[in-house]
Amino acid sequence: MKQFNTLLLASLLSLQAQAADWKALPDVAPAPADNPNTAAKIELGKMLFMDPRFSSTGTVSCNSCHNIMEGGDDSRSVSMGVHGKTGGRNAPTVWNSAFHSVQFWDGRAPLLEDQAKGPVANPIEMGMKDVETAMNRVKKIPGYKNVFDKAFGKNSMTVDNAAKAVAAFERTLITPNSPYDKYVKGKGNAMNKQQIRGMNTFAEVGCVACHSGPAFNGPEQKLGEGFYVMFPTFNNEYVTKYKLDKDKGREEATGKATDRSMFRVPTLRNITDTAPYFHNGSVNDLGEAVRVMAKTQLNQTLPEKDVNDIVAFLGALTGEYPEITMPRLPATSGTSIIEE
Amino acid sequence: MKQFNTLLLASLLSLQAQAADWKALPDVAPAPADNPNTAAKIELGKMLFMDPRFSSTGTVSCNSCHNIMEGGDDSRSVSMGVHGKTGGRNAPTVWNSAFHSVQFWDGRAPLLEDQAKGPVANPIEMGMKDVETAMNRVKKIPGYKNVFDKAFGKNSMTVDNAAKAVAAFERTLITPNSPYDKYVKGKGNAMNKQQIRGMNTFAEVGCVACHSGPAFNGPEQKLGEGFYVMFPTFNNEYVTKYKLDKDKGREEATGKATDRSMFRVPTLRNITDTAPYFHNGSVNDLGEAVRVMAKTQLNQTLPEKDVNDIVAFLGALTGEYPEITMPRLPATSGTSIIEE
Repeated sequence: MKQFNTLLLASLLSLQAQAADWKALPDVAPAPADNPNTAAKIELGKMLFMDPRFSSTGTVSCNSCHNIMEGGDDSRSVSMGVHGKTGGRNAPTVWNSAFHSVQFWDGRAPLLEDQAKGPVANPIEMGMKDVETAMNRVKKIPGYKNVFDKAFGKNSMTVDNAAKAVAAFERTLITPNSPYDKYVKGKGNAMNKQQIRGMNTFAEVGCVACHSGPAFNGPEQKLGEGFYVMFPTFNNEYVTKYKLDKDKGREEATGKATDRSMFRVPTLRNITDTAPYFHNGSVNDLGEAVRVMAKTQLNQTLPEKDVNDIVAFLGALTGEYPEITMPRLPATSGTSIIEE
Repeated sequence: MKQFNTLLLASLLSLQAQAADWKALPDVAPAPADNPNTAAKIELGKMLFMDPRFSSTGTVSCNSCHNIMEGGDDSRSVSMGVHGKTGGRNAPTVWNSAFHSVQFWDGRAPLLEDQAKGPVANPIEMGMKDVETAMNRVKKIPGYKNVFDKAFGKNSMTVDNAAKAVAAFERTLITPNSPYDKYVKGKGNAMNKQQIRGMNTFAEVGCVACHSGPAFNGPEQKLGEGFYVMFPTFNNEYVTKYKLDKDKGREEATGKATDRSMFRVPTLRNITDTAPYFHNGSVNDLGEAVRVMAKTQLNQTLPEKDVNDIVAFLGALTGEYPEITMPRLPATSGTSIIEE
């Protein structure tokens, strides 16, 4: 987390922009001390992430809902798991998820290592009985043993190591060098005039109160400590129209009434690639999402010009996706492990 | 198809093996005259093949059932399409499908270009109303226009061109250099003794009557002309146990009683990576599949030693899968095109 250096270039930015303390995305994502990234772990993690055989039907992998060939999500309002089942929440993008200090909309997993275990045993996601049953599937695929050996040493085929590998891979899924990043690093023409205007409006109207920091997901936190904000804060016609108060947010995870409607602030990076929007995926247009946020969080009705400028600025947050080679998923050699 | 050269190396092979006219997989798959492969078409085809947004739910791509990170199928007895729906047939591998002269188990599509259009509008596969509706989705994704322009010229966003691109990509999905290929090209130690024994048994007992040629899917045919065989030919306890005669085969496609139980002969390449087996995916073990084939097609009960030798030989048909870079699927920019 030491890489979160501020790279202000005051001469190029307006006063408001300066005040917002704009930061570029670090080149490396933070990792916990007990799971430093290695090439072998990343390769194993990529295989596990892309392999659908650890879902009950053999049809759902991590990548099904967090498609890294797209914006790291699934273009759906709520995701579709095994047997066409759907839940109540929108799949957050996996891109730059390593810059979140907690995982899931309600922050119920402190680290990516913990998050990775969740969907596997969720009956409406990957639908396995439990993570150990999923791990038994991994063990039945002979080709995985050698990859675990390389990543973690002998006799290392455990749920915890599988989760560590997936998390290590996810920490490579970051998108630096957006027009915004280039701009704050000093390339004045990396953003156009409308985008710069939008950046200032974004700061002036107060979006930046929550969407701050290099990933636009709040102030820097220790891994495992979350930054939560009440959504919706102000009641209005959007709340009814988009059913924004139906989900209890973090209360679902903690059972505490004080956590009612509290959500982890999501990153805004690559947001043009991750429609539809909000925890329930109820809004399918980025302009409308900006209107809703201004009204429900800041109690403001923005002029359409400001909405358009902010949307233009948000478009400048789309970074460079790294090129990724498809993993070769080892065969079970003359038999299948999918029973459902 | 001129590349189907016989590369016999008589001195290394037994008399039976020679008699079988063993052929290595060509380095290039045949393509129809009106759709020669180009790099731009292949790139577009890869994108379309991997993109799940052309299914009604946004969850099913070509790759969902023909996973090129695995054996080109889905490890399931019968595939699972949108909303968890299932059909009656096993997904054939897309690897080396370019060496089939007709497509689908019943040969109802003459070319890969025709096949590519089928699953899109099938209600239990990708579930779109029709292929034009799917093409409208492609048109709504701004980033595809440029890729079509490069592949086919201006104003080229048509269903036919999309299908041509997918077919062009699929013609690159071939797996040469299996131990078998190396062996028949002269590398005597590329197969072990059991595999060589299995190869001879495969020829002696008569498997090679149907599973001949470089892809082990029958004699060379013109593209569009199929090689069909009745399955099952002999009635026995396996037919009942695995419900092998329930599917009417090619009769389903033609309506002709003479096509009852006729199936295109599938390739045996990479067969250890494509369990479960048969048109209905009813057999989950390659050894059992060999026993069933010997009994139902050749009316023979093979000694277990022969079964094991043939399985070992079939393992030598797994070739080299090419390394493939994940495509970057263009975003719809601040909106989603998935409604279901």
